Amino acid sequence: MNNKNKHINVKDVIQVDNELLDNISQLVDQQANASIKTIFANLHSADIAEIINHLKFNDAVYTFKLLDNETAGEVVPELDENLREKIFLELEPKKIAAIVDELETDDATDVVSDLPDEIAEKVLEKIDPEDSEDVKELLQYDEETAGGLMNSDFVFVNENATIADAIEEVRKNADEFEHIYFIYVLTNNEKLIGQVLLKSLLTNPPSANIKTAVEEDLIYITPEIDQEKVADIMDKYDLVAIPVVDKNKRMLGRITIDDIVDVIQDEASEDLQKFAGLSDDEEFTDSTFKVSGNRLPWLAVSLFGEMISAVVLSSYQASIEKIIVTSFFIPIVMALGGSSGNQAAIVTIQAMGSDTVRLKDGLRRLFKELRVAFLNGIVASFVLFTLVYFLFNIEVKFALILCLSLFIIMITASIIGTTVPILLKKFGADPAIATGPISQTSNDILGLLIYFSIVTLFLL
Amino acid sequence: MNNKNKHINVKDVIQVDNELLDNISQLVDQQANASIKTIFANLHSADIAEIINHLKFNDAVYTFKLLDNETAGEVVPELDENLREKIFLELEPKKIAAIVDELETDDATDVVSDLPDEIAEKVLEKIDPEDSEDVKELLQYDEETAGGLMNSDFVFVNENATIADAIEEVRKNADEFEHIYFIYVLTNNEKLIGQVLLKSLLTNPPSANIKTAVEEDLIYITPEIDQEKVADIMDKYDLVAIPVVDKNKRMLGRITIDDIVDVIQDEASEDLQKFAGLSDDEEFTDSTFKVSGNRLPWLAVSLFGEMISAVVLSSYQASIEKIIVTSFFIPIVMALGGSSGNQAAIVTIQAMGSDTVRLKDGLRRLFKELRVAFLNGIVASFVLFTLVYFLFNIEVKFALILCLSLFIIMITASIIGTTVPILLKKFGADPAIATGPISQTSNDILGLLIYFSIVTLFLL
Repeated sequence: MNNKNKHINVKDVIQVDNELLDNISQLVDQQANASIKTIFANLHSADIAEIINHLKFNDAVYTFKLLDNETAGEVVPELDENLREKIFLELEPKKIAAIVDELETDDATDVVSDLPDEIAEKVLEKIDPEDSEDVKELLQYDEETAGGLMNSDFVFVNENATIADAIEEVRKNADEFEHIYFIYVLTNNEKLIGQVLLKSLLTNPPSANIKTAVEEDLIYITPEIDQEKVADIMDKYDLVAIPVVDKNKRMLGRITIDDIVDVIQDEASEDLQKFAGLSDDEEFTDSTFKVSGNRLPWLAVSLFGEMISAVVLSSYQASIEKIIVTSFFIPIVMALGGSSGNQAAIVTIQAMGSDTVRLKDGLRRLFKELRVAFLNGIVASFVLFTLVYFLFNIEVKFALILCLSLFIIMITASIIGTTVPILLKKFGADPAIATGPISQTSNDILGLLIYFSIVTLFLL
Repeated sequence: MNNKNKHINVKDVIQVDNELLDNISQLVDQQANASIKTIFANLHSADIAEIINHLKFNDAVYTFKLLDNETAGEVVPELDENLREKIFLELEPKKIAAIVDELETDDATDVVSDLPDEIAEKVLEKIDPEDSEDVKELLQYDEETAGGLMNSDFVFVNENATIADAIEEVRKNADEFEHIYFIYVLTNNEKLIGQVLLKSLLTNPPSANIKTAVEEDLIYITPEIDQEKVADIMDKYDLVAIPVVDKNKRMLGRITIDDIVDVIQDEASEDLQKFAGLSDDEEFTDSTFKVSGNRLPWLAVSLFGEMISAVVLSSYQASIEKIIVTSFFIPIVMALGGSSGNQAAIVTIQAMGSDTVRLKDGLRRLFKELRVAFLNGIVASFVLFTLVYFLFNIEVKFALILCLSLFIIMITASIIGTTVPILLKKFGADPAIATGPISQTSNDILGLLIYFSIVTLFLL
């Protein structure tokens, strides 16, 4: 038995990595190249990538340069994108070309698109001419679309081929492709007719025409479709690979599930970032200025919005002066309005997802949120009354007014939290990024307006 | 050609669904069963599931009952889990058993585990005895672990088998498994020795021993590993299937990538929900009371936290009374402190992910956040000064004090936003769920303390 059985007991891996990181850093300092290579020879390429991702930049470059081209080709797709871009800026065009030659066309395109133009040209001249053509073609697609994700290499046979021909085709390509999920069946004009599962090559007679083994459901997409949509389709239909065709149904490439898993993870974490007002995906390696610029837009919305809150409060100066205790509860009405609104907003955003069907459920959703807000408003007001009554030496009448305000504010905040994302989606905006600032600041402003109107109405 | 070519142009699909939903509802009202069946006959099971997911509950049950057992078996794994549970409560044990017989063992286990005990027992008596044993065995694992995700059916051969034997095994099992990624090689005692890619059966001579085709890297897991960890491993190593073994390396089952895609999507959306204080995944079909209970814990933390804010403010009553204008800017210092803190917290939470290695980068991360907060604090203070100076008729000295407070508060908030999740992780708590309430309320309290201390120090 020549296979290394790596039992991934997760804790072990991470402990090993932590030790390894320190070891590797020391070995880099000592320029002990042979030792580093020996360690890497026993590791999976994904583990090597993880180590390089966590080293200091100079150590990362040093270590990466020690990899032979084949290993580098396996490590590159697993590297942090930002780091990958920076490492390649440190390499000679000839070395880059040698590594790119080892990559699948989709990964090759990602690497080349990050290079400065003059270096990219040099690299494209040096790599295999066929790959060079493929990469140039793939470069025209937006990185976040099906075209940007697809690999233009795939196993296919002509519609007149037999099962035996297809088996031969798999044999010829076995080394190039780690996984072959489907053999695609094309016409003489490269139009996609269907796909054949690998297992069907084993279960059908070798002399039969390939079309006897074609799968029933053929789901394909066009290259301009957004990657999030591609992920939804592959998830919904449980696909491991999906063919990409042009408008004449000519097959351009295919997308495999491992690329989509990354997309799903990125898109999902983006929603959380967007909601906190990070306009773009941040990497730790980004400069302070870039990160700052990424976060300022939301802070600006917040700043301008709360200036309106300040104006609202100043217009109630007389009330505040007369009953100074009202000002103590500004944080409470703001925080509870904000939290209720955010909860309603996030539930609504996630329920909609990419699924516009549910827009028509908007009213049902709003009524549901109103019932929840009603219930939570009653509970919160009751708790608030008890706390205020025992902690502060104030009139029962004021405590009641405060609780009434909180109740109304929580109801209002739920309405805003639910309707803002639905309306944004209806008008084509991205609810995840715009809901946060809009719903939060308008809840703050409205909350204070409601609170001080009620106080002024009943107590002055 | 007998394959239906479904070009999934995404807009089309959704428009069709919208029309279909109305049509189906009408057809249900008219009890036009034949028409509904005709429509479904032309749809993918994932589309049928999506339709049922969006119908009113009674219509959903009515429609589901129209499906033959085989189609129902395909639709069930795609149904909303909550709805699935409720639909099965409306079915007779005999019907449930017939559908469960169509399911893979992992899905069958999910269905049975949701049934009331007495019904579950009846169902287990009625299904295929071998499946019944499998399900009983799988029921012992926590739903959110590798054991809960794995399918105990898989294609395997004995270590003494030849390539030809393995091909024969694939032929025998071709109908049962939609996708066969690997053939597992086991000893006489069912211990896992290795896995063989399907393509290797085509590229190796039929008479060769199966072990000549065994894959180099064998990565396997044990059943108690958390599903999020399983997802990380499969993502990191780009696996389409992973074997699950017991502590003696006896093979128990395998997990395929389609189940993991769902896990990744659930876990990622959970982070956003957790951050907004939703303790559990909410479904629109949950009762108002359940949703309310889900959201109240965070609201309670917020309420108690902001009571402390109220106490802080009351202790500065003299300052507020003397300079009433200070109260107008409470919303600004709260909102900007909160936003800066949240941004830092979310970036930290996501950077850590499940990746504990980065804990040791904690200090580097904190310094980075401090630089960003420094920059953004200067920009925000400058803008605030300009706005306050022109909008409010107040002294320059007060405007300066306000800006100084804002600057210090933004720095403090970043420190809290960065350190709270790191500390939570260090002490074994889930940073996503606990960071929100802890960092937000402590930022509010600290922000107000800082603001009024500075005001009192300089202006009174």
